[in-house]
Amino acid sequence: MKLFDMTGAPNPRRVRVFLAEKGIEIEKVQIDIMGGENRQKDYLAINPRGLLPTLLLDDGSIIDETSAICRYFEETHPEPALYGDTAKSKAIIESWIRQIEGDAITPAADILRNGNPAFENRSIAGTSDTPQVPALAERGVARLQGFYVRLDNKLSDSEFVTGDSLTAVDITAICAIDFAEYVGVAVPDSLTSLKRWHNRISLRPSAQA
Amino acid sequence: MKLFDMTGAPNPRRVRVFLAEKGIEIEKVQIDIMGGENRQKDYLAINPRGLLPTLLLDDGSIIDETSAICRYFEETHPEPALYGDTAKSKAIIESWIRQIEGDAITPAADILRNGNPAFENRSIAGTSDTPQVPALAERGVARLQGFYVRLDNKLSDSEFVTGDSLTAVDITAICAIDFAEYVGVAVPDSLTSLKRWHNRISLRPSAQA
Repeated sequence: MKLFDMTGAPNPRRVRVFLAEKGIEIEKVQIDIMGGENRQKDYLAINPRGLLPTLLLDDGSIIDETSAICRYFEETHPEPALYGDTAKSKAIIESWIRQIEGDAITPAADILRNGNPAFENRSIAGTSDTPQVPALAERGVARLQGFYVRLDNKLSDSEFVTGDSLTAVDITAICAIDFAEYVGVAVPDSLTSLKRWHNRISLRPSAQA
Repeated sequence: MKLFDMTGAPNPRRVRVFLAEKGIEIEKVQIDIMGGENRQKDYLAINPRGLLPTLLLDDGSIIDETSAICRYFEETHPEPALYGDTAKSKAIIESWIRQIEGDAITPAADILRNGNPAFENRSIAGTSDTPQVPALAERGVARLQGFYVRLDNKLSDSEFVTGDSLTAVDITAICAIDFAEYVGVAVPDSLTSLKRWHNRISLRPSAQA
């Protein structure tokens, strides 16, 4: 088993933090997205979509998409449960992950891929040649700011986003926020609940994965 | 329990088809997205994000996001399993759902919300006032065409997208494709495997849900 990975990219990091919280160690292979290695034929022979992260199973099967890889390990290593343990908690966790992806990871990626010359003609992850759309970089900032306020509000009365213990929601959120800060949209100091949560999650050993 | 729903919108339909395949009947309340009812205060008191579909549980909890609602029912009504029954099948199903959402539902929604005057200043689902970005409507067409070819290829040797039985992938795909055709991007007749699959899935009683 092997994980195709890129240090510094938000979605591969979600998988690494998830594995660290589960105590799972696997072989990792670095693929340089910035340099376009994910669009070259050696990597496309592994994943024709050119996406990272990608998990290669021992039977030769390929699993891409962050949430699919994490859910694979949730099944093979159920403890600690990071996707919930009741119908309701599982649904709430899935809902929050979707909210963070749509309102934070996507806008931050929009800022990077539509505003940075290094991604010229690569505004969509993967293999397509798609021109940058500067308006997406602009609206990404507003979306992130709104998201920060909602997340701060949610964290005003709980230690983790959805309750008493860390879940895949917190992992998704820390990777999203660190990525958003990397692309230039910092969490305002006025959002004290979110800041406190961020400091606490960042101190966990898994955050260094 | 109550499902806030809109006939004609792709994501609410995914939940209705999912429920039909599970044999679950629940109360449904129509909310008119086109008319902006999801952005009015009565609905925002239920779901502050203004999104559909939304599930109201008997304990008063709110679950939004299509995949979260479907996963709730996968837990409460495990048979037939629509999200897979092994670690590997669960991961492959999740990966395909993400691919269909990213490469078909999102581009089709981009075409509708950035090209139709009815969605002026509502280019993102929910409550934000976000100007239309015409370039998104344009690139949506190319993304859908690429997706159709990949899905046709996948269906060349199997009756359902991920194997021998219907899963949430087929449900996601039929709702995505019917939505894409509604916004004007038809499946080409040359993609015969995809056409055959589409006809077969459309004949299931659940497709009318």
